[in-house]
Amino acid sequence: MDIRTPDWVKDAVFYQIFPDRFAQSSRVQKAGHLQPWGEPPSFHKYQGGDLLGVVEHLDHIAALGVTAIYFCPVFQSASNHRYHTHDYYQVDPMLGGNAALRELIDAAHARGMKVVLDGVFNHASRGFFQFSDLLEQGEDSAYLDWFHAGPFPLSPYDDDSKPANYAAWWGNRALPKFNTGTQAVREFLWDVAEYWMRQGIDGWRLDVPNEIDDDDFWREFRRRVKAIDPDAYIVGEIWGDAGRWLQGDQFDAVMNYPFTRPCIAYFGAHTIDNAMNEASGTGHVEPMGAEQFGARMTEAAAAYPLEIVQAQLNLLDSHDTARYLSVVGGDQTAHHLALTFQLTYLGAPCLYYGDEIGLPGGPDPDCRRAFPWNDVPSWNRDTLALVRKLTAVRHVTPAFQRGNFQVLHAQNDLLIYARSHGSECAYVLMNTASEARMAALNALDAGDYRDALSGQTVTVVADT
Amino acid sequence: MDIRTPDWVKDAVFYQIFPDRFAQSSRVQKAGHLQPWGEPPSFHKYQGGDLLGVVEHLDHIAALGVTAIYFCPVFQSASNHRYHTHDYYQVDPMLGGNAALRELIDAAHARGMKVVLDGVFNHASRGFFQFSDLLEQGEDSAYLDWFHAGPFPLSPYDDDSKPANYAAWWGNRALPKFNTGTQAVREFLWDVAEYWMRQGIDGWRLDVPNEIDDDDFWREFRRRVKAIDPDAYIVGEIWGDAGRWLQGDQFDAVMNYPFTRPCIAYFGAHTIDNAMNEASGTGHVEPMGAEQFGARMTEAAAAYPLEIVQAQLNLLDSHDTARYLSVVGGDQTAHHLALTFQLTYLGAPCLYYGDEIGLPGGPDPDCRRAFPWNDVPSWNRDTLALVRKLTAVRHVTPAFQRGNFQVLHAQNDLLIYARSHGSECAYVLMNTASEARMAALNALDAGDYRDALSGQTVTVVADT
Repeated sequence: MDIRTPDWVKDAVFYQIFPDRFAQSSRVQKAGHLQPWGEPPSFHKYQGGDLLGVVEHLDHIAALGVTAIYFCPVFQSASNHRYHTHDYYQVDPMLGGNAALRELIDAAHARGMKVVLDGVFNHASRGFFQFSDLLEQGEDSAYLDWFHAGPFPLSPYDDDSKPANYAAWWGNRALPKFNTGTQAVREFLWDVAEYWMRQGIDGWRLDVPNEIDDDDFWREFRRRVKAIDPDAYIVGEIWGDAGRWLQGDQFDAVMNYPFTRPCIAYFGAHTIDNAMNEASGTGHVEPMGAEQFGARMTEAAAAYPLEIVQAQLNLLDSHDTARYLSVVGGDQTAHHLALTFQLTYLGAPCLYYGDEIGLPGGPDPDCRRAFPWNDVPSWNRDTLALVRKLTAVRHVTPAFQRGNFQVLHAQNDLLIYARSHGSECAYVLMNTASEARMAALNALDAGDYRDALSGQTVTVVADT
Repeated sequence: MDIRTPDWVKDAVFYQIFPDRFAQSSRVQKAGHLQPWGEPPSFHKYQGGDLLGVVEHLDHIAALGVTAIYFCPVFQSASNHRYHTHDYYQVDPMLGGNAALRELIDAAHARGMKVVLDGVFNHASRGFFQFSDLLEQGEDSAYLDWFHAGPFPLSPYDDDSKPANYAAWWGNRALPKFNTGTQAVREFLWDVAEYWMRQGIDGWRLDVPNEIDDDDFWREFRRRVKAIDPDAYIVGEIWGDAGRWLQGDQFDAVMNYPFTRPCIAYFGAHTIDNAMNEASGTGHVEPMGAEQFGARMTEAAAAYPLEIVQAQLNLLDSHDTARYLSVVGGDQTAHHLALTFQLTYLGAPCLYYGDEIGLPGGPDPDCRRAFPWNDVPSWNRDTLALVRKLTAVRHVTPAFQRGNFQVLHAQNDLLIYARSHGSECAYVLMNTASEARMAALNALDAGDYRDALSGQTVTVVADT
């Protein structure tokens, strides 16, 4: 099968936003009972971020060199993370409703930025209309076949002393699983995907798509989405091997967690905080040296056809993990090296909002802190400057965007790799030790090189 | 206060539709698990009527002389009667969604018909978004002050072994009562009213408005609705004395149940089925003779200023009562007399769908049977012909629409009343006995009169 992924993704820098915590606009009217902005996050409280807040901070996002925003769910949902979808056709009123998303899409597109939404299609919520009908009517419900439910009555809000009597995601009663074997459900979910594509979004990040264990479902999903926009990006949340979905007929790529773990293991080798990892989506991470890291990254670069690897979503952290800076014990150098690797590796880098200013954060919910717009002194200006520099370098260096990946030297703390594309070749030298290291650069020809970070010329002379 | 009610109501003939049971259109895709059309109604099952079905039967409605349709709730709701509102901004998908209401409003208006919707503003449902948030987040909910709730957790689906811990309509856990003391809730409900007015509806029938015990709430409701359309009709469901709401600053009129009971008591005096009344919204009804009936109707005609009485919604039955024909023991003559009185009395007559073909029906849910479009032989053609005749007479007889009401003779089974308007005077003679009665018509001058039903001339000669 001819595999094609969107070209724009290969050159993109993504920015992931957790909408309740990024920014608030005074133009969006809020519910009365919010947690003050910036307080330690809780599982249940809202802090009141919204999509017009994002519009009003597009300058910041653009200045980071970001070309695409991936949003955690934005649809109406009785949860601050909005994974408990209540209505797939309505943007949450606290986020500003459909009008705010309209403004956001238009404002982002006007800057040449893409917008990717999170599609939570495996399960709905207890308040979702058709499930609500099942709760109210039992066997008489018109939507009896929309869920895997029975015998009745169901026990949606009881503790485990009563069986829920319906299938739910990981047994969580809050998240009743759709019966995607029912044609009306399939059509409903596909229509949601098409509806928002027609509203102008540029792709879908798919939440736990492996739980809909049905290749035909995803094939038809792809056909419909690509019929509206052949350049749409379809990226699945698959934590392990994703070969099944990356044959060219389902997803374009996946969230590259196999990229994440080695980046913690190598750059954080000396400072890694595994208590935090273990409480987070990442799980325990064994430290590793440059050899192993180089091998794993070489492997990841060849795990799928190049067309797909170039479109992988490479992330250091997300709303599901502790923040990278915290996972590496607050080691800013490790964070900077990891960012450097992320921005110079094969695949689309995805920055998690706040990482660019060194926002710390433990496992969920702590990794979802409010962006401290009003506490600029708390920002790490070095990290911010580095991110801006690295994205700028990437954007003018096709070798970083599309070049192949070749490890030239990998030993102990020291890693050297090359990215070459056409006649251009870029080299990256990394040292994770706390002191200087010497390495023989016998892979480099003698001559003048430009240091991408400083802009200065570096002369490599032949070893005599 | 200057009291003004919409002129169009004074000349209107209303038709009340229960949307799940009026008509189905093949253009609306249905959920899979419906009860077959025409089976005995149940509390929980759907039969799948929709709004395009109404559009496709506007010929029938127009031929009845109907000029305004009052719909039981149409918004997304997990209940076949749709009083359990799930989303006030969405027409139920099974009814065809917002697009179907758009088509219906346009089609009705093209025929000069008005559209009045049922506004259920006192309470929402367990699946309603903001209440759902309360169920999910408890005290951390952003919408904590939208309902009267606590202590937490709430017990929405438990039986009475646990307290619900929130206020609900008549203690029904399915219907959590809004906290209309919260400004955001007030604004939400007013906005709903305004939104649908801007979509072109012609008024609101208000469900249990007395339960929102707050005149200022309704005053502002009226201001906003009338600002969009000064001719909007606001009619409250008030079963008893409605003076409080009929001062000119809240409702235009109310559902005239004080009209309903005497119509059962007098026309049904010989056949009344009180077991049925007692199980229905009407309650026990003592038979009465013409004297008492005449007195009660004279009283009702003077209960409020004329401007309001002319705009009262006069009904023989509704979705909340057994059907009139069944309440009077299936006595077709009583039904025909009652229809005649309804169509010749002061105030806007409201026909309940199906009554025009003699559809029987006991208390809820039996009074909500599907309209038997496919069983035309079951229709009572005499009743249908009478309704058409009576509405036609009313439309060409301003005295019936707007004239005053004066009882000329009321004794035992015999009732004679006059409706006079300007120089026109119409007389109605009724006999509820099963044989002919003689009466002295000394209130009528000698001369020629036109019998409105037959078109023939009747000559009254002076008694010598």
